Amino acid sequence: MSDRRALLRWLTAAPAGLALVNLASAAAGAQDSGARNTSPQPASGAVIPNLVGAEQIAMLVYPGFTALDLVGPHFFFACLAGARVHLVSTQDNMEPVVSDLMLAVQPTTRLADLSETPDVVFVPGGSAGTLAAMRHEPTLAFLRTHGRAARVKTSVCTGSFVLAAAGLLEGKQATSHWLARESLAAFGATPVDARVVHDGDTITGAGVSAGLDMGLAVVEALRGRPYAQALMLQAEYAPQPPFVGGRPENTDPAITQMLRERSQFRASAEVIAAERR
Amino acid sequence: MSDRRALLRWLTAAPAGLALVNLASAAAGAQDSGARNTSPQPASGAVIPNLVGAEQIAMLVYPGFTALDLVGPHFFFACLAGARVHLVSTQDNMEPVVSDLMLAVQPTTRLADLSETPDVVFVPGGSAGTLAAMRHEPTLAFLRTHGRAARVKTSVCTGSFVLAAAGLLEGKQATSHWLARESLAAFGATPVDARVVHDGDTITGAGVSAGLDMGLAVVEALRGRPYAQALMLQAEYAPQPPFVGGRPENTDPAITQMLRERSQFRASAEVIAAERR
Repeated sequence: MSDRRALLRWLTAAPAGLALVNLASAAAGAQDSGARNTSPQPASGAVIPNLVGAEQIAMLVYPGFTALDLVGPHFFFACLAGARVHLVSTQDNMEPVVSDLMLAVQPTTRLADLSETPDVVFVPGGSAGTLAAMRHEPTLAFLRTHGRAARVKTSVCTGSFVLAAAGLLEGKQATSHWLARESLAAFGATPVDARVVHDGDTITGAGVSAGLDMGLAVVEALRGRPYAQALMLQAEYAPQPPFVGGRPENTDPAITQMLRERSQFRASAEVIAAERR
Repeated sequence: MSDRRALLRWLTAAPAGLALVNLASAAAGAQDSGARNTSPQPASGAVIPNLVGAEQIAMLVYPGFTALDLVGPHFFFACLAGARVHLVSTQDNMEPVVSDLMLAVQPTTRLADLSETPDVVFVPGGSAGTLAAMRHEPTLAFLRTHGRAARVKTSVCTGSFVLAAAGLLEGKQATSHWLARESLAAFGATPVDARVVHDGDTITGAGVSAGLDMGLAVVEALRGRPYAQALMLQAEYAPQPPFVGGRPENTDPAITQMLRERSQFRASAEVIAAERR
């Protein structure tokens, strides 16, 4: 267990910004990890304002979350120099949290350990695990208090249904995975068919891969466009899907129909909405 | 530790395909997790051939890997019904492997435990950790034997430099992160400025986010385009970056220059190439 504890200490103590390029290395007086060049770096504030911040970012992880929903925005958030990203387990323990596709992520803290309201609260999507999170009272209580008070409330995919179950989307425009989106209406939200939907301080993303677009939108909101464009270049985010698709409108209708028939998410979410009334 | 062991047993025993929609639920005679509808599903083989396979997919995880490089393709690979995805630690132990941005992933196995050659071998990128992996003899030995023999050898971002250090890109066309790509030439490869580069059974992707495009290309190679398009729709992969950028050509030159000045990856990789000669 001592290895485990050392790992956790490191995860919770380490600063953000150790990717291929550390934007703030000059501002913070530090060099890139792996640096060989010790000549002074030019000041970067003129090119990128808000180079160092101090945001507290809480990313919820619950059993059955979709890892790509989490890791898309995590790349951008964790590259925010000076920010602190918390991977917040909804479980009582600090065991790795297993995703819907069997990728287990080590949390850095638990819901109950976050006593101060973070600047950003993020919820990933999933399927059966998301439906369970929509009924998980400690998760809902956290969102009703710290989630509501956070400067930015954000989600990807069916994560918006967890925000909705906590009452955070009432009267708001929001999006979700195309298979589920319309059922946001059962929670008092107005579903919008868009990649990223801003409604005040609430920023929701569409299905799974929309977390990259949502993540950049949140970085822009926190630090401005030049910072977001620097991270976009660092992620080489100039997507080129190898063939057409990704939307019901541009996919073989038989494939779209097959996915629709096999998803019970909407029906189950609407049962939860009815229970709340 | 018993919780740990139970987790590992579950991770290594669970089948793929538990995402929002399980494409093979009819073929495998199983229902979606969270299913309520118990009516029989229509046969799907007519819409999507190769609905169930048996690929063994080895995704390497080394200290300092970039999590988004791994998790982009992982989504697509782990949705391949019947396939088995191994998260292969290059470390001697089974502790979570910490990414460059402090996201720790639980491996499901170790290099030494994989006795049979997998169908697919994948290497993610990173920075200082990737340079260390390029000198890590057990990693290189695995790639020289099982990597070379695998049906598909693939990488994202600077992961191609680990393939290169093992000699797998000699005489081949390949890509990498835009900041590093040209130095692939020092390892006998021909750098190509493209999102995804196919050279025979070697499929390399550009920087970080290119793992989504690469992942779909690999799924198409393994199961054909209809399966890949079904997963593209499941991931709602119809990217819409919220502003222009992602390439040196469409980003403020001052930002591009700042990133170039702060990366020592190329210089360090070329030192490793020189050591090998």
